[in-house]
Amino acid sequence: MEREKLISGNGNPSYGEGATSFADDDDLLDISTDTDGSVSFLGGLSTRRRRSVNGTENGSDSYEGGTAPDQYEDFHTIDWARDMQRYRKEHKAVSRRSSRSIWGRLKGSFYAVSAWVVVLLVGIFAGAFAGIIDIGATWLSDIKLGVCKDAFWLNWEQCCWVQNNTQFGNEDDIQCLTWFQWYELFGLQDPQDWRAYLVSYLMFVGAALLMSALAVLLVLAFAPYACGSGIPEIKTILSGFIMRGFFGKWTLLIKSITMILVVGAGLSLGKEGPLVHVACCCGNLFAHLIPKYGKNEAKKREMLSAASAAGVSVAFGAPIGGVLFSLEEISYYFPLKTLWRSFFCAMIAAFVLQAINPFGNDHAVKFYVEYNTPWYFFEIVPFILLGIFGGLYGVVFNRLNLKWCQLRITSKLGKYPITEVLLVALATALLSYPNPYSRLNTSQLIAALFRECGPQDAIGFCDYNRTYTRTDQHWYPSAEAQPGLIAAMWQLPLAMILQGILTVFTFGLKVPAGLFIPTMAVGAIGGRLMGIAMEQLAIEHPDLLIFTGCFDSGKCITPGLYAMVGAAATLGGVTRMTISLVVIMFELTGGLTYIVPLMIACMVSKWVADAFGRDGIYDGHIHLNGYPFLDGKQEFMRTTLAYDVMSPRRTDPPLLTITMDTSTVEELENLTTETRFNTYPVIVSKDSQRLVGVVYRKELIHALKQARKNQTGIVSQSKVYFTRKVPKFQVPGIPQHLSLLSILDGSPVTITDQTPMSTVVDMFKKLGIRTCLVTHNGRLLGIISKKDVLRHIAELDHQDPGSTFFH
Amino acid sequence: MEREKLISGNGNPSYGEGATSFADDDDLLDISTDTDGSVSFLGGLSTRRRRSVNGTENGSDSYEGGTAPDQYEDFHTIDWARDMQRYRKEHKAVSRRSSRSIWGRLKGSFYAVSAWVVVLLVGIFAGAFAGIIDIGATWLSDIKLGVCKDAFWLNWEQCCWVQNNTQFGNEDDIQCLTWFQWYELFGLQDPQDWRAYLVSYLMFVGAALLMSALAVLLVLAFAPYACGSGIPEIKTILSGFIMRGFFGKWTLLIKSITMILVVGAGLSLGKEGPLVHVACCCGNLFAHLIPKYGKNEAKKREMLSAASAAGVSVAFGAPIGGVLFSLEEISYYFPLKTLWRSFFCAMIAAFVLQAINPFGNDHAVKFYVEYNTPWYFFEIVPFILLGIFGGLYGVVFNRLNLKWCQLRITSKLGKYPITEVLLVALATALLSYPNPYSRLNTSQLIAALFRECGPQDAIGFCDYNRTYTRTDQHWYPSAEAQPGLIAAMWQLPLAMILQGILTVFTFGLKVPAGLFIPTMAVGAIGGRLMGIAMEQLAIEHPDLLIFTGCFDSGKCITPGLYAMVGAAATLGGVTRMTISLVVIMFELTGGLTYIVPLMIACMVSKWVADAFGRDGIYDGHIHLNGYPFLDGKQEFMRTTLAYDVMSPRRTDPPLLTITMDTSTVEELENLTTETRFNTYPVIVSKDSQRLVGVVYRKELIHALKQARKNQTGIVSQSKVYFTRKVPKFQVPGIPQHLSLLSILDGSPVTITDQTPMSTVVDMFKKLGIRTCLVTHNGRLLGIISKKDVLRHIAELDHQDPGSTFFH
Repeated sequence: MEREKLISGNGNPSYGEGATSFADDDDLLDISTDTDGSVSFLGGLSTRRRRSVNGTENGSDSYEGGTAPDQYEDFHTIDWARDMQRYRKEHKAVSRRSSRSIWGRLKGSFYAVSAWVVVLLVGIFAGAFAGIIDIGATWLSDIKLGVCKDAFWLNWEQCCWVQNNTQFGNEDDIQCLTWFQWYELFGLQDPQDWRAYLVSYLMFVGAALLMSALAVLLVLAFAPYACGSGIPEIKTILSGFIMRGFFGKWTLLIKSITMILVVGAGLSLGKEGPLVHVACCCGNLFAHLIPKYGKNEAKKREMLSAASAAGVSVAFGAPIGGVLFSLEEISYYFPLKTLWRSFFCAMIAAFVLQAINPFGNDHAVKFYVEYNTPWYFFEIVPFILLGIFGGLYGVVFNRLNLKWCQLRITSKLGKYPITEVLLVALATALLSYPNPYSRLNTSQLIAALFRECGPQDAIGFCDYNRTYTRTDQHWYPSAEAQPGLIAAMWQLPLAMILQGILTVFTFGLKVPAGLFIPTMAVGAIGGRLMGIAMEQLAIEHPDLLIFTGCFDSGKCITPGLYAMVGAAATLGGVTRMTISLVVIMFELTGGLTYIVPLMIACMVSKWVADAFGRDGIYDGHIHLNGYPFLDGKQEFMRTTLAYDVMSPRRTDPPLLTITMDTSTVEELENLTTETRFNTYPVIVSKDSQRLVGVVYRKELIHALKQARKNQTGIVSQSKVYFTRKVPKFQVPGIPQHLSLLSILDGSPVTITDQTPMSTVVDMFKKLGIRTCLVTHNGRLLGIISKKDVLRHIAELDHQDPGSTFFH
Repeated sequence: MEREKLISGNGNPSYGEGATSFADDDDLLDISTDTDGSVSFLGGLSTRRRRSVNGTENGSDSYEGGTAPDQYEDFHTIDWARDMQRYRKEHKAVSRRSSRSIWGRLKGSFYAVSAWVVVLLVGIFAGAFAGIIDIGATWLSDIKLGVCKDAFWLNWEQCCWVQNNTQFGNEDDIQCLTWFQWYELFGLQDPQDWRAYLVSYLMFVGAALLMSALAVLLVLAFAPYACGSGIPEIKTILSGFIMRGFFGKWTLLIKSITMILVVGAGLSLGKEGPLVHVACCCGNLFAHLIPKYGKNEAKKREMLSAASAAGVSVAFGAPIGGVLFSLEEISYYFPLKTLWRSFFCAMIAAFVLQAINPFGNDHAVKFYVEYNTPWYFFEIVPFILLGIFGGLYGVVFNRLNLKWCQLRITSKLGKYPITEVLLVALATALLSYPNPYSRLNTSQLIAALFRECGPQDAIGFCDYNRTYTRTDQHWYPSAEAQPGLIAAMWQLPLAMILQGILTVFTFGLKVPAGLFIPTMAVGAIGGRLMGIAMEQLAIEHPDLLIFTGCFDSGKCITPGLYAMVGAAATLGGVTRMTISLVVIMFELTGGLTYIVPLMIACMVSKWVADAFGRDGIYDGHIHLNGYPFLDGKQEFMRTTLAYDVMSPRRTDPPLLTITMDTSTVEELENLTTETRFNTYPVIVSKDSQRLVGVVYRKELIHALKQARKNQTGIVSQSKVYFTRKVPKFQVPGIPQHLSLLSILDGSPVTITDQTPMSTVVDMFKKLGIRTCLVTHNGRLLGIISKKDVLRHIAELDHQDPGSTFFH
C-alpha cells in the first residue's frame, strides 16, 4: 500500500439534519473474524456449521433500513452496542409507523406486548417440560426395582399409595401388593432370599447400564450440545457469544429424553442444572417467533435470561430464587425490565408445574418441609462448622472434578465417551445398590433427610424409641437409637463418600448432568449426621448449659434443619452462589425462620472456599473449555494501561488502516483478501493518522462487490472516498470515483493509550463493545479487541492466554 | 491567547514502566463547577456550606499517592470512574503493604472485612432505630385517647392486654379498666355521654396539633433535610450527587424524633419511606468510620445501597423485598458484591427488629397474615379490577400531589410551612375522629383489613352472623351482615376518600412523611370492600356457575386477600414498583399461595398507570425539584447525535483549550480566573486541535500556586509544558520552564461527533463519567457534560431544560 500525503483540508464538514445518515446504515452485518481461524472445541464435538447468510434471512421486511441485518457467524462474539442501536432504530420506526394507521397501531401494540407473550409461552413450556421430565425420571427410576402390576405407567409411590403409608423408605419395609418386584418373575417371593436379592441387584445394574448407554448414544448421535449441565455454556452465550444449535430444538428434545434416562439410571447427577438449559431452549425457540428478539442477538439474550430464571424456578419450585439465580449467576446484561419479565416467566413456569404436580405435595416445591420449630443461638456453632465443611468440600470437589475433566481433554480418555459412561454407570449401580440410602433416588433421599422423623417413618435414620419423662417443670424427651439409626450411622457416611466420589467422575460425562442434587445430597447427609449427633447430645445431657431453655417448646434440635443447612453449605462451596442460594433454600421452607442459619452456612462456606480460589465450578469449566467469558462480576484490579494490551505490539508491523480519500478499489480488495481483520480503521491520511471512523470487513467486501457490479465506471483504479464531499472530476483518463461513506461507522469507541485497563475492561463489559481504537495525542495508535482483553486477563492470572477459544 | 503553530514532532514518545505515572496522580481533587453558579433549591432550605478542603482531611496517611483526595463540593456531581480508579489503586497499595509485614497483613485483613463490619453495624442500628420509632409512634398515637393508669409508658394494647381480647377495634368495645380515658379527668364515666365524646374529640385534636407543631418546628430549626420521605433525594444522591448533611447525624436524630411525633399526631402519612432515609443516615455515619468508604463517594454509595435495603427490610419486615427495592427503585450502581452485602444488612436489621418485637407478633413482619386458604381462578377478574383501580388511583394521586407541590414552590404557600402543617393536622384530626376507621392508627387499620375475621373480632366490618347449612354434599356457610358491617359499608369508603385527599396535601409538607402506608390503606379499603361484596355474592348465590367447587374447602372468598391485592395495586400505581412490591407483599404472607394474585394486581396497575405517563411519584418529585438525576432504568430511545448536544454550540465562541507546550503561567492563571469551567482540554496545538488530555480546574490552580511558591525561576512568562520532555534551555533571558505533566489526565473519555446520543447516554450512565470530549476526524470539537445530557433529555421530553439544578 502506498504512503499518502497529509491532507489537512477536511476541517469542518457541514452538519445538519442529514448528519444522521452515518448511523442509519448501521444495521448491516457485523461479524468478527479475528486473525486466527483455528477452531478446537469441546473435544471434537464442534459442529461448526456456517449457515449461508441468506438461509436465515426471511421476513426481513420488518426492518426499515431496507437491508436485513446479517446474523453473526458461529463461535463469534456479538456487539451489544450495535445490536441495541439497531433495536432502538427499529423501535423508533415502529412507533413512527404506529401513529400513522390503525393497522400500524395494531402492529405497534403487538410489538409492545410481544415480549410478554414470549415469556408467557416460555414459562408454560418450561413448566410443562419440567413436569414431564420429573414424572418420567421418577417412573424410570422405580422401574429398575419393579413394575406396577395393574398399571405399568404408575411409579412405585403412585402404585402403592396407601393412606398414611406413603413415606419413602426401603421397599422391603412396606407391604405393597400391587407392586411387582422383578424377582417375582422367577417365582421368588421372599425378598430376604439371597436369590431374590441377586436378581434384583442384576436387574438394577442392567437397567442402569441400558439407560445410560441409550442416553449417551442419543446425545452423541443427535445433539452433542445436550451433554453436561449447560450452565457454563449458557453463561458464555449470555455474555455475548454465538454457539449455533446450543439452544436448538434437537438439543431440547434430546436433552429432555436423555435426562429422564440418566436420572432413571441412577447416575450421580441431578436434573436441575439441565432444566435451566431446557428452559433456555424454549426461550430461544419462542424468541424466534418475534423478529424483534429472534433477529437481534442482544435482545434475544434478554429472553434467555428470563428463561433461565424459569428453569431454576421449575427445578426447585422457587420463582424468586430463580430470578436471583439468573441475575447473580447466569445473566450478563440484565436491565430491570428484564427482571420483571423474568419474574413473570418464572412464576408462570412454577404455576404450570404446580398444575402438573409431579411431586404430589401440592406445593410445587421440591423439598417442601413443614416444620417451623425455632432454632437456638448456640446452634450457630454447628452451622458454622457445616459452613466450613461445605466450603472445604467445594474446594476439593471442584479441584478433583476439574483435574479429571482436564485429563479427559488431554488424554485418550476423551475418545471413548460411551465406554466411560458405561463404566461410571456400572460402578454407580454396583456400589449403590447394597447401601439402602444410595439405592434411593437422590431427590427422594434429600427430601427424606430434610424432613423431620414422624412416628410412621420407615426410613432407617428415623428408627428412634421415643419416650417422654417429666422432670421438674419440663417434659424431657428421650429418643434411644434403635438398630436402624445405628446402621444409618455407617451407611449414611458411606453413601456420602460414594456420592461425592461418583459425582467427580460423573459431572463432565457426555450425558446431561447437573450437580445441584448430588452436591445437596452430600451436604444434607453431612448435616443430618451432625443434627442426629446434636440431638443425641441434647437428649443425653439436657442439663448442659447450652441447652438451657432449649426444651421449653418441647423440641430442641431439628436434624432436618441441619440437613438443609448442610446442603446449602456444600452447594455454596461448589457453585459460590450467595443470595440466590439463600433465597432458593428459603423458598423451600416458605418462612423467614431459617433464613439466618442458611445465610450463616452460605457465607462461611463461600469465605472458606474463596480462600482457596475464587472460581466456582461453572467458572472453572468455562476456563477449562476456554470459553471467551468476560466476567462482569469480577472487578479488574490491576494497573496496566491500554498501551500494554493493544495490538500492534511494539515489534509488530503497523496497524492496517485505510485512508479516507486516497485508496483505490483494487487496494481495498487486496486488503480484504490478504487479511482477516474484522475492523479496518479509516484515517485522514497516513501522515496525520487522525481517525475518521471504521469500516467492517463484510460490509466493505459487499459494498465493493456491489459497486463493481452495479455502478458504471468503477474499475480497479477508481478512488474510494469515505468523505462527505466527493470531487466531481469529469477529466478523461481519471476513472469514476466511488463513495463508500454509507458503510463508514463514524462513531467507533476510542480511548487514549494512557487509559487504565480497568476503565477499558469496564467499557467492554458495560457498553458491550467488541473492539475499541487506541489513540495518542489524537493519532491512531492501535486497536484492542475483546480477545486482547481476555488474553490480557488470562496472562495476568498466569493462565495460558492461548487457550481461550475465540473469534 | 495566542495562536500557536502546528507541531508535528510529538510522534511516538518512549513508553515503558514509567508510563503509569500519568494515572498515578489521579487521586487528586475533582470538582465540577460549571459555568453558572446560581443555586436555588428546595424553596429556600438550601444550606450551602462550602467546607474547607483541609477541614475534612484527616487520616490522609492511608493513601499512597501522598496527596489526600479532596472532597467534592456541595451540590456537585461525582465522577464514578475516577473514584473507582482511586479505590482500585488504594486497594492495590493495601495488598502490596499487607504482604510486607504482620502489621500490614492485619491491616489488610481489616481492610477486607471492614465492609462487613460496617453493614453489620448499619443493620443493627437501622433495626434499633426502627424499633424505637415503632414503639414511640404507637405510644404517642394512643396517648391522644388516654393513658395507662399504672404505667404511663405502656400503649393501649400493652396496657389492656387481656387473653384472647387483643384484637384492634374501637376502644369502646372492650372493657379495659387499666386504661384511663381523658374524659375521666372530668369525672365522666360513660363514653356514650356527649360531653365525654366532646372532651375526647378536643383532646384528640389538641394533641395532634401539638405534636405536628413540635415536629415542624424541630425540622425547620435543626434539620431541614429531615422533611418528606427522602426517597427522591436518596435516588438522586445514589446516582452520584452530593448533598451535604442529607445523611447527617442531625437529620437522623430529628427525623427519628419528628417521625414519632407526626405518626403519633395521626397525619395521613407513613414511616416506611422515612425509615429508608434513617437507615441511609446510619449507613453514611458508619461508612465514615472506614476511610475506604468515608473518603470515596463512589464506594460510599455501595454502603448507602445496602443501608436502604435495611430500611425497607425493617419498614415491612421483608429483607428480600428490601434488597430488591434497593436494586429496583433506589440504587444506581449495584454490583453483585453489594447485593450480597445488602442482603446481609437487611437480614441483620430484620433480626434486630424482631428481637425488639415492636409489633408483638413474633414475626418481624408488619402485617403478618395467617390464613392460607386457596384462591380460585374466577377471582382473577376482581383482581384485575383492583389492578385497574390501583393504576387509576396512582395516576390521579400523583398528578394532584405534584400539582399541589408545584403550587407550594411557585406561590406564597411555600413561605408558611408551619401554618400549612397546622392546618393539615387540624383538618386531619377533625375529620378523622368521627369515623372509627379513620381514627385508628393507619397501620392498625391496614392490619385489620388484611386479617380474616375471627369470631372474637370486635371491628365493625367483621360483624357477621355466621351460620352453616348443609345442602346436598356441602356445608354452605351463610354470613348475614349485621349493623357493624352495614355501617362499615359507608364508613370505609368515606375513610378511603378522606385518606386519599389528605395524603395529597400531606406528602410534601415540611415534616417527615412517607406514602407507603396511606397508599396501602386506600387500596386495602378498596380491596376489602370488593372482597366483602364478592363474599356476600358467593354466600347469597352459591349456585352461580363461577362458584362451582368454591365452597369445597369450606371457605370461598377471603376478603383479607382482596385487601392485600388492593394495597399492592395502589402502591404499584403510585410508585410503579414491580418485583420488589410483589416480593414485599409476598413476604408478608410467607407463602407462594398468593403470589399470582399479587402479581396480577401489580402488573395491571403498572400498565394502566404507565398509559398516562411513566413516572412514579418519586420520579415526579425528582423532576419537580429539578434534581440532576440520570435515570439508569429508562432507555434513551432518540436518534440525536453527540454533535447536537455538545458545547460550544455553533453560535458560541470556540472551546477554551490549553496547548501542551506553548502556554505561559500567566495565561493559565488568567484562564482559571476568567472562566469557571471544571475541565480544560489540553491539545497539541491550536492548528491541529489534536487532544492530549485534560486538566482539572482545581488541580491546575493548586499546581500553579505551588510552582510560584516553591519552584525558583517560575515567573509569569514561564512556559508550561504538558509533555514528557521539557526542553532544558539554559539561555539567559528565557525564564525557567514549568512541567505540569503530573496533573494531566491522559485518559479522558472521547467520542466522535457522529456518536448516537443513546450510546453517549449509556456511557454516562454505565461508566459514571462526568464529562466527555467530542472529536471529529481526530480534532477536538467540543465537550459534553452530564448537565448537557440532562438538559438534552429534558428538552426532548418538552420539559424546561433550565429547571435542572446542577453543578
